[in-house]
Amino acid sequence: MSKLTVTRKPFIVGVMGSHRDESNTVMKEARRLGEGIAMRGHVLLTGGGPGIMRAVSEGAYLAGGLVIGVLPNDRRHPLEKYPNEFIDLPIYTGMSDARNVINAKTPHVLVALSGGPGTLSEIALALRSGTPVISLHAPPFEIPGDYDFTAVDSVEEALREIDRVLDKLLIS
Amino acid sequence: MSKLTVTRKPFIVGVMGSHRDESNTVMKEARRLGEGIAMRGHVLLTGGGPGIMRAVSEGAYLAGGLVIGVLPNDRRHPLEKYPNEFIDLPIYTGMSDARNVINAKTPHVLVALSGGPGTLSEIALALRSGTPVISLHAPPFEIPGDYDFTAVDSVEEALREIDRVLDKLLIS
Amino acid sequence: MSKLTVTRKPFIVGVMGSHRDESNTVMKEARRLGEGIAMRGHVLLTGGGPGIMRAVSEGAYLAGGLVIGVLPNDRRHPLEKYPNEFIDLPIYTGMSDARNVINAKTPHVLVALSGGPGTLSEIALALRSGTPVISLHAPPFEIPGDYDFTAVDSVEEALREIDRVLDKLLIS
Amino acid sequence: MSKLTVTRKPFIVGVMGSHRDESNTVMKEARRLGEGIAMRGHVLLTGGGPGIMRAVSEGAYLAGGLVIGVLPNDRRHPLEKYPNEFIDLPIYTGMSDARNVINAKTPHVLVALSGGPGTLSEIALALRSGTPVISLHAPPFEIPGDYDFTAVDSVEEALREIDRVLDKLLIS
Repeated sequence: MSKLTVTRKPFIVGVMGSHRDESNTVMKEARRLGEGIAMRGHVLLTGGGPGIMRAVSEGAYLAGGLVIGVLPNDRRHPLEKYPNEFIDLPIYTGMSDARNVINAKTPHVLVALSGGPGTLSEIALALRSGTPVISLHAPPFEIPGDYDFTAVDSVEEALREIDRVLDKLLIS
Repeated sequence: MSKLTVTRKPFIVGVMGSHRDESNTVMKEARRLGEGIAMRGHVLLTGGGPGIMRAVSEGAYLAGGLVIGVLPNDRRHPLEKYPNEFIDLPIYTGMSDARNVINAKTPHVLVALSGGPGTLSEIALALRSGTPVISLHAPPFEIPGDYDFTAVDSVEEALREIDRVLDKLLIS
Repeated sequence: MSKLTVTRKPFIVGVMGSHRDESNTVMKEARRLGEGIAMRGHVLLTGGGPGIMRAVSEGAYLAGGLVIGVLPNDRRHPLEKYPNEFIDLPIYTGMSDARNVINAKTPHVLVALSGGPGTLSEIALALRSGTPVISLHAPPFEIPGDYDFTAVDSVEEALREIDRVLDKLLIS
Repeated sequence: MSKLTVTRKPFIVGVMGSHRDESNTVMKEARRLGEGIAMRGHVLLTGGGPGIMRAVSEGAYLAGGLVIGVLPNDRRHPLEKYPNEFIDLPIYTGMSDARNVINAKTPHVLVALSGGPGTLSEIALALRSGTPVISLHAPPFEIPGDYDFTAVDSVEEALREIDRVLDKLLIS
């Protein structure tokens, strides 16, 4: 029986992205992002499915991180590729798209990595909820007003930005 | 006791927008949009609150239309200005932002009129759910892929677009 | 195009019950209950599906009442027998069992007519939310505390109890 | 920085109960139940609040178990005593009672320990979702049909029943 070590009351980092496979480059970025999150001792939270969600979960899982998947389905209604094989804690909601709200509200910081309208909804809901959002290749949009949103160009920059956001939480 | 006449199994037109008051021009547009929807015999569905939601509801209500408000709160937890005074059928969810999903999925067609991240989340969720979206001054964004999204410049154009979308449903 | 007349800001009466057909007697009771609700000018709200939900909707619809169905599915994911053919306003949630919360919170008064664990969950959620509950053949249970719950033995008694509850709301 | 050890893909045991403090006896039972769950290496999931939820979380937390709290509120809307101080992973939903659905669907087995209508709704939703339910002093009710429900008289019996249910899952 495999074990992992978890910090008490850890930071939760959300990563949102498409359920479809993206380019090789983006999938590699997702795995490296997951690995970086796990190596910092943070818990990863995703939508628990295939594509980007699976790649980032794989990176975190194989690096010894704890991985939460907030699933759109429930056990009674199995959904192909949900949860992916790198989810430690599947949270079954049966709520379809309404589970996006949980993905947006729960993490201490959220990274949007590529994705379509589902990811855009999670970005918008996160901004509305006050969750800081870091965007790496996410759909562009413009909202008038002052929101905690940062666009970055690489996984390394995303990880530095995660550090910066969480450091602020430690101090406050 | 005031009465109104409703078509059996009517079309439901959703209008999403900010809970804040917008410029005089936009508020007038919202009222005219609501009026136009009611005069076509359609039921109006909004988030049931203040600002744009109230203005469009006022237009529809005063023109004799039936108005549904899908509320974030429940009766046990009154929320100031929810429902506004032009809501016939308040649907209490107590679900906060998760009620946006219902606003996105229920209408036969959805008009986004101005608004911030809440409205953007409803646009994104609607596109994901296959609900046609008509945007009048809504936050700009870009999603790669083929979605049923039309940007318009005036209330008249929005109403013509509503007609066009619903006519297609009648035929199919 | 068929029309119906609706009171402005009408009372909403919820009726919850099994998605399965019950005995002939119970199905007839459901239709009579729906008819009585519509004839009083109230809007009927159900879960929008088959069985008891359909029978009570049929009674209300054929008596010229407006019928709301709060559906567990969305248009993208059709669900057999949802909505039934007597629903005027299908509210699409895609939320599966979480839509029970809306059924429990929205009506001014809720009648539980037979049913299984789904109906029991709606009774419990209604009591928790302060919605008065009238039970006709609903699953028996006991909750310590002071809740607005009345067991009745017939449709006529249920309708009288609906009148009593709504009269109190008119006065207060 | 305190650490704990977690099994990869652990079993999740839900414990539902009142947000109010119960008798000394019941509170002690809740703590012992939480302790027993943690000592078996299972993750505890509760509604994350005060009363029974806090007592069982305390027992699990102090015994070195990982504790998930599925909260009715979100960070933007702090709710007194949510999360309690023994929650490692607060899942913010902002969905009020709709979060009960997640509590009912996510655990591999659910223990209902005392409680009012909220707990009763979770029992009903769990039975509907196929989650096995173990009841210790929970509100009595009767649902016709064949459901996976066991009433027990003590914490020890509840823990043995948890073992029995989870052993079956290991085999199947």
